[in-house]
Amino acid sequence: MHPYRTHSCAALRAEDAGKTVRLSGWVHSKRDHGGLLFIDLRDQDGLTQIVIPAGSPFLELAENTRVESVVTITGEVVLREPSTRNPNLPTGDIELQVKEFTVQSEAAVLPFQVAGNEHYGEELRLKYRYLDLRREKIHNNILLRSKIIASLRRRMIEQGFTEFQTPILTASSPEGARDFLVPSRLHPGKFYALPQAPQQFKQLAMVAGFDRYFQIAPCFRDEAARADRSPGEFYQLDFEMAFATQEEVFATLEPVMEGVFREFGNGRTVTPAPFPRIPYAEAMAVYGSDKPDLRNPLKIANVTEQFAGSSFGLFAKIAAGGGEIRAIPAPGAGPKPRGFFDKLNAWARENGAGGLGYIQFDEEGGKGPIAKNLEADRVKAIQDKLGLKAGDAVFFAAGKGDEVAKFSGLVRTKIATELELIEEGEFRFCWIVDFPMYEMNEESGQIDFSHNPFSMPQGGLEALNTQNPLEIKAYQYDIVCNGIELSSGAIRNHLPGVMIRAFEIAGYPASVVEEQFGGMLNAFRFGAPPHGGAAPGVDRMVMLLADEPNIREVILFPLNQQGEDLMMGAPSTVEASRLKELSLALALPKPKPAVVKKTEEPKG
Amino acid sequence: MHPYRTHSCAALRAEDAGKTVRLSGWVHSKRDHGGLLFIDLRDQDGLTQIVIPAGSPFLELAENTRVESVVTITGEVVLREPSTRNPNLPTGDIELQVKEFTVQSEAAVLPFQVAGNEHYGEELRLKYRYLDLRREKIHNNILLRSKIIASLRRRMIEQGFTEFQTPILTASSPEGARDFLVPSRLHPGKFYALPQAPQQFKQLAMVAGFDRYFQIAPCFRDEAARADRSPGEFYQLDFEMAFATQEEVFATLEPVMEGVFREFGNGRTVTPAPFPRIPYAEAMAVYGSDKPDLRNPLKIANVTEQFAGSSFGLFAKIAAGGGEIRAIPAPGAGPKPRGFFDKLNAWARENGAGGLGYIQFDEEGGKGPIAKNLEADRVKAIQDKLGLKAGDAVFFAAGKGDEVAKFSGLVRTKIATELELIEEGEFRFCWIVDFPMYEMNEESGQIDFSHNPFSMPQGGLEALNTQNPLEIKAYQYDIVCNGIELSSGAIRNHLPGVMIRAFEIAGYPASVVEEQFGGMLNAFRFGAPPHGGAAPGVDRMVMLLADEPNIREVILFPLNQQGEDLMMGAPSTVEASRLKELSLALALPKPKPAVVKKTEEPKG
Repeated sequence: MHPYRTHSCAALRAEDAGKTVRLSGWVHSKRDHGGLLFIDLRDQDGLTQIVIPAGSPFLELAENTRVESVVTITGEVVLREPSTRNPNLPTGDIELQVKEFTVQSEAAVLPFQVAGNEHYGEELRLKYRYLDLRREKIHNNILLRSKIIASLRRRMIEQGFTEFQTPILTASSPEGARDFLVPSRLHPGKFYALPQAPQQFKQLAMVAGFDRYFQIAPCFRDEAARADRSPGEFYQLDFEMAFATQEEVFATLEPVMEGVFREFGNGRTVTPAPFPRIPYAEAMAVYGSDKPDLRNPLKIANVTEQFAGSSFGLFAKIAAGGGEIRAIPAPGAGPKPRGFFDKLNAWARENGAGGLGYIQFDEEGGKGPIAKNLEADRVKAIQDKLGLKAGDAVFFAAGKGDEVAKFSGLVRTKIATELELIEEGEFRFCWIVDFPMYEMNEESGQIDFSHNPFSMPQGGLEALNTQNPLEIKAYQYDIVCNGIELSSGAIRNHLPGVMIRAFEIAGYPASVVEEQFGGMLNAFRFGAPPHGGAAPGVDRMVMLLADEPNIREVILFPLNQQGEDLMMGAPSTVEASRLKELSLALALPKPKPAVVKKTEEPKG
Repeated sequence: MHPYRTHSCAALRAEDAGKTVRLSGWVHSKRDHGGLLFIDLRDQDGLTQIVIPAGSPFLELAENTRVESVVTITGEVVLREPSTRNPNLPTGDIELQVKEFTVQSEAAVLPFQVAGNEHYGEELRLKYRYLDLRREKIHNNILLRSKIIASLRRRMIEQGFTEFQTPILTASSPEGARDFLVPSRLHPGKFYALPQAPQQFKQLAMVAGFDRYFQIAPCFRDEAARADRSPGEFYQLDFEMAFATQEEVFATLEPVMEGVFREFGNGRTVTPAPFPRIPYAEAMAVYGSDKPDLRNPLKIANVTEQFAGSSFGLFAKIAAGGGEIRAIPAPGAGPKPRGFFDKLNAWARENGAGGLGYIQFDEEGGKGPIAKNLEADRVKAIQDKLGLKAGDAVFFAAGKGDEVAKFSGLVRTKIATELELIEEGEFRFCWIVDFPMYEMNEESGQIDFSHNPFSMPQGGLEALNTQNPLEIKAYQYDIVCNGIELSSGAIRNHLPGVMIRAFEIAGYPASVVEEQFGGMLNAFRFGAPPHGGAAPGVDRMVMLLADEPNIREVILFPLNQQGEDLMMGAPSTVEASRLKELSLALALPKPKPAVVKKTEEPKG
């Protein structure tokens, strides 16, 4: 017999009754029934009930064994009395009658309980992460993460992709977020950087003639933590394709995403491929966001025309000044009490708006302060434009350009949330396409890149040379699920001439481009295929599928929000000799002088 | 029609004749046949011959397009004349008659040729790695690497393992090689370390109740480069199993290794599982190495007894002094000329030995200087012991302990190499088991750990408390293929009490153990399962399968031997502001003072 186990703790069934078996696992819980001891024994796969009868030579040992100790139990599988069977447990028809009981590893008094669903502080949980990870929810999250990643790999390989490992000790990248640096011992005064993403390497792999690259790639950014962003490291499904059009990139990623979300969605519905393609301008107009949550059925309408020259002076003036008035429907909100509208008004003020105007509709037409001051035919025109019925309401956001667009998007989300219109149990995907290549910097009045300077402009060199830069779009796209941007991506600019011209428009002379991005430019001078890709965030996918808003719930051993590993004690000080061999010295910030408290009282 | 390609460059066959197709790829080579231009167009999958007939409007453009430019060709598939078909090329029956010819990306003059097998210096190749990677051999090596890793993953998952990602920003580990450090910006004066291996994390995953962990794990060591070791980063198939015995670890890894080596061995034979288990003591006795190359059929014999008290004074004296005389057979070397033996003697002296005695055997018995001075019955006894026939020879290594063991191993390799006895086209695996837990430090006379202090001693606490430490063996093992150690591994010591006692024997008080390894010890105090594993080196496996002695030939973008990325320019200096935000300052070594050349001449 195996010294530790013949079966897992989830394996035994009624038909095993009579067999002598051996199980190993953790003492999940103990229950004393008048001299008779029950133990739930747990391993990764499940639980089995152990019985130590009164009079057993192991009773005292078992009683003294703390929960979470590791034990090996040899015994006979016996059918439970029908009344004590547990239909919720796969092994609930049987129990194991102890013949041998061996403690493999005793548990000390626990800092928190593994069994049960008690809430504990994150710092405590992270310090004892190895205990925390035994708890059911997070244990399952981590296994889910592994399954998702294995499925992503399988699906990418099935599509003809090859996984490559790109360097982790590499060069500092000249743009983007802050790198982590790694001092070089052999090259005093020089540093490696950890990659923010393998962007340059995957493009170089394309130049090297590899056709379809992917990697579950560790990425590193020295940025502040957020709920959805781990400080330090994160993983992305990094991929790139040679000789691919934008539509081909979409058609490649869609079955992967749809497949993975169906596989692990646990019955939640998933947008079938092809996912909607929404031009950036339309997304901003209709959803007030370039990351629209399509579970939200509300669509914003432009009602500037309906207010222009109207007797509702505030909006008429905004319209006359080149501003925009946007209407956000609130189906069913017509009969809501005054308090509902006041609360939303207060919310709008908290979010920097002047307020939140509205019209309520009943069988007789529009009601409320705006409707009172607006011509009846205009009220009717708004009602018709938004397809509003009696019993509905509409809210208005007014202002200029991006500001009103984004605020109307917030209102859309707020109203749908208040009215509980967001469809739960859905994964709604879309692509945002046709991002503008450039934008006007409001402060400097100059033209800036609006997103990624390395994307191919639509129309190529000719567009750069002949079109108004602000009207040029890029082969640049985002994939969004439930309002969360999983990835941006692009068809890359693989032509040095086009790249230099693109930067010139944004005010960078060729010499600067050569200096800062010479490595890539030079590679592109030896025969580069057209190529493009994206890099959906793995942690975010897992968060969506595990329904966890906190990224640390889907990472095995995460750093805390301060970038510390409380279990291993990282970061930590190092010996002076280590710094010396790295040709470094500490230059610690001076401690702030203690504040001398003035005793002077404020003068009356 | 797709803007870039309807087929890959390896796809077209005779039955496609008449179709209009589109291909994209690199201009691999051009041949001008009197106005008619042939191009071999290359992509990741293969080559297709393109014909641009005399008079084609694209002839001049094609002639002016340098090799390695990226082009898109639309044309008609035509059957080649039977005499010009190329049976060595999958597309060799057809060619593509050009109708459209588009240059996607022009190549500049190349620093070296992609086509052909010319040898170029490594520094040049690494600087233009994206060109180097287009060359057939290394391109295939990198694809092979990817396939091997995908196969390892598939096989581990099939065996019930789950892949986890362990942290890359972690704590400095208190033992082992030198860590790379990463300064923390948020915690001035503190540093993360890159993991030398996820050893502690995988053990903590076991403590956390995950049953079978694996990871294709990036590991980092700030060590000097060697041919088989990359400076900086390398990958290992890291795995760990809970509730597993040593034999179970073997039985788990064997089918993975055998399977992968068969899958990619290209017809080379592979040791069938179970691989031989060779105790450490036997390996040192029979092979003179704990990494025996089993393709070498020679076995070392101990002939101390045969020389003890003999008339061959040198060896008799060594035997009398507690030394050992080892015999290494040299089948078929009997008739070799004197020069063969002299050359080996010189080789032995270069390797620190006094020389290399030998006996040649012919039909009449032993010959040569030793045979002359040794009693005939002893010569016969040696011949019998080693099973030597007329026409064979035997060499002798004499000395003490490990020194003679290791030297006899060198002789074994040298002789087999000289006699061309090493079987090519074989992958011969074995496990080395039963490593001693402790060894005597010859200098200090004290007991040291001989390998890994964290392995479980065979016999556990009782052995530690009752046996001579030098006789205690550990549940520690190596897996060896063709004389290359792919991995060491162990059943770990998961019991704090046993660990503290094990360290005590090696001279470390409990307080030191608690201080240095408190993290792991504490985790083991909350219920740890027995567990063990190993971590075969991925790069080494690929080197064996690709038959490449240089590790940089199996890595996509390797650092050079000085730890530099010549393509991306890493490591590099960073701006002062970056150091300041990391609370660091450079402390560069002082430049050495220029040597003032003395004009004084040596006195005559």
